[in-house]
Amino acid sequence: MSDLSPVPASAVVRVDLPQQPYSIAIAAGLLDRLSVQFQDVGLTGKQVLLVSNPVVFKHYGDRAIAALEAANCKVTTAILPAGERYKTLRSVSKLYDVALKARLERSAVFLALGGGVIGDMTGFAAATWLRGVRVVQVPTSLLAMVDAAIGGKTGVNHPRGKNLIGAFHQPSAVAIDPDVLRTLPAREWRAGMAEVIKYGIIWDRELFERLEAAERLDRLRDVDADLLHHILTHSCRAKAEVVAKDEREGGLRAILNYGHTIGHAVESLTGYRSVNHGEAVAIGMVAAGRLAVKLELWNAEDCDRQTRSIEKAGLPTHIPLALDPDEILAALQADKKVKAGKVRFILPQHIGAVTIADSVPRDRLREVILGAMGNG
Amino acid sequence: MSDLSPVPASAVVRVDLPQQPYSIAIAAGLLDRLSVQFQDVGLTGKQVLLVSNPVVFKHYGDRAIAALEAANCKVTTAILPAGERYKTLRSVSKLYDVALKARLERSAVFLALGGGVIGDMTGFAAATWLRGVRVVQVPTSLLAMVDAAIGGKTGVNHPRGKNLIGAFHQPSAVAIDPDVLRTLPAREWRAGMAEVIKYGIIWDRELFERLEAAERLDRLRDVDADLLHHILTHSCRAKAEVVAKDEREGGLRAILNYGHTIGHAVESLTGYRSVNHGEAVAIGMVAAGRLAVKLELWNAEDCDRQTRSIEKAGLPTHIPLALDPDEILAALQADKKVKAGKVRFILPQHIGAVTIADSVPRDRLREVILGAMGNG
Repeated sequence: MSDLSPVPASAVVRVDLPQQPYSIAIAAGLLDRLSVQFQDVGLTGKQVLLVSNPVVFKHYGDRAIAALEAANCKVTTAILPAGERYKTLRSVSKLYDVALKARLERSAVFLALGGGVIGDMTGFAAATWLRGVRVVQVPTSLLAMVDAAIGGKTGVNHPRGKNLIGAFHQPSAVAIDPDVLRTLPAREWRAGMAEVIKYGIIWDRELFERLEAAERLDRLRDVDADLLHHILTHSCRAKAEVVAKDEREGGLRAILNYGHTIGHAVESLTGYRSVNHGEAVAIGMVAAGRLAVKLELWNAEDCDRQTRSIEKAGLPTHIPLALDPDEILAALQADKKVKAGKVRFILPQHIGAVTIADSVPRDRLREVILGAMGNG
Repeated sequence: MSDLSPVPASAVVRVDLPQQPYSIAIAAGLLDRLSVQFQDVGLTGKQVLLVSNPVVFKHYGDRAIAALEAANCKVTTAILPAGERYKTLRSVSKLYDVALKARLERSAVFLALGGGVIGDMTGFAAATWLRGVRVVQVPTSLLAMVDAAIGGKTGVNHPRGKNLIGAFHQPSAVAIDPDVLRTLPAREWRAGMAEVIKYGIIWDRELFERLEAAERLDRLRDVDADLLHHILTHSCRAKAEVVAKDEREGGLRAILNYGHTIGHAVESLTGYRSVNHGEAVAIGMVAAGRLAVKLELWNAEDCDRQTRSIEKAGLPTHIPLALDPDEILAALQADKKVKAGKVRFILPQHIGAVTIADSVPRDRLREVILGAMGNG
């Protein structure tokens, strides 16, 4: 916020939904001050189901519980295994079992302390326990901070497709403590950077130019506090503004899927293992950018600027050679964003502005996928 | 609607929800005219997942499919086993599998052709498939017509508690064809009558007095077309009015749970087998009525009128002797309507008007439960 201030910057980003507006608080040390967040939204003294994974809980569980108990909450803990492949109805069923055993009532609050997988499952369990209880998101990965924790998309994977089962369920509050990123594995930092670059391309030219000006983006320790604060506030603001304009993905919200169409196919076909979500989005953005150039929607120079930023963030730019291009084409047809059998693509027109293309010619799409095959 | 008219009566009851108002159409022969309903809500030509159980599908599946195909819909069928004990996450998972295989898109419509179990599961699957697709309810049991199909409550049972997992998801339309009641087993007819009597007590004195004036209520063939029409329209209107005033059960909607608090405990403890939902509600209403008399909220004479109507409908009035009264008390604590450990009861004050009691003394409750033990 200020170059002169010695105190860590803090910010509040509002998500202005007509039915349920809420705030995203961003501040170093927030994890220990969760009681203030709970007080702000009238959640002191509630039953809390804290959901986390073993690694995150080991680092931050005690501090989160202490902060919640300072808000007079009665905390029950549920630890789910880490990883996208555990984002299943079966894992959510375990949360129901814990909720039943702890006799969680309709006034209870589910709290997600973890990355996107924990956030999505906790949100879905909250959406469906007793037909809906409140959820607070405390994201601990960069990806979850700038994307998954905001906007109310919750859900789990079907064995044959990502996020096919889910619900819209907005959080009551989101609390982002940038300090917890220090323990984030480098590869997950980079995955989050994919979504940050995405916001630069689809919404916020200033953010993109700040990223371009940075020397390195591939590891947290080379990103100074000011840039990190800029990244978090601008990314959250971009997401919040889009979601507030279109809560249920009737129109504008689709632009958040930039890079995700091919990305989802790559993730799904690699079994959610060798390529993570952010890496898949990076690959998808490079491909979508080239598709936009091929369709004469975007100029090649800006497309190259996008590719260079993605490379600087240490992210892959090609579809793994192990995948079959025709299988990718087939998987695109099974994507839930399909409309009347046509694949929808979000394509850049300028840095900071995209358009929605509803009927991309199949042969052009195939050319781009073939051209995107490669290493790294 | 008219004593003079030779044509079967028909009616439309509106559910006036601010976000998504919809209509309940009630008319003999409606099953064959589903295409009109679909046209009214802009669903012609959509992908339809028709969900039913084996018995209902045998009777009405072909006619429903023909009507949907007349609306140019592409119909996929999923048959789930009948019975409350199959109202599980596992059965819903089967619907997801069928939806995936049929590549159902966000514009698809799920259609429930069956009783409350089919309606609840189809609604929940629709609420959670691709984060929400539309659902049309075509209830075939009296219970589903007057209750389950209206109001957007969807969900499944947890092995240890009824309806603990679910979502609010309003239908796009409800189509009630009284003719299909002809194949409804007598015991299920009586179960539906429990909810009809409930509406008389909580909301509609005129409905209750029509029921009192009838010679028999325990089987469809002794209920004339006019009375049946009155029962359906008045019950649906009662439900619609309450739901429109309180979609998410923040206040008024709780009155619909009259008879359900003890009812759910009885159902759950008998393993959803020997006592069905309507029978459990009947038992619960008799007990709640006596609790109201004991607490001097209601007069004994009106309470007896309620009991006589329940008996006339061929419904049980006592808790099965096989159950342990203390287990019932314990089960009441696990009910999802518990608030801060206190059991909430809906108690009559007049015929047509109830009140919500939040802290019923435990000893009074125990007396009523002990007094309610018996045969039939």
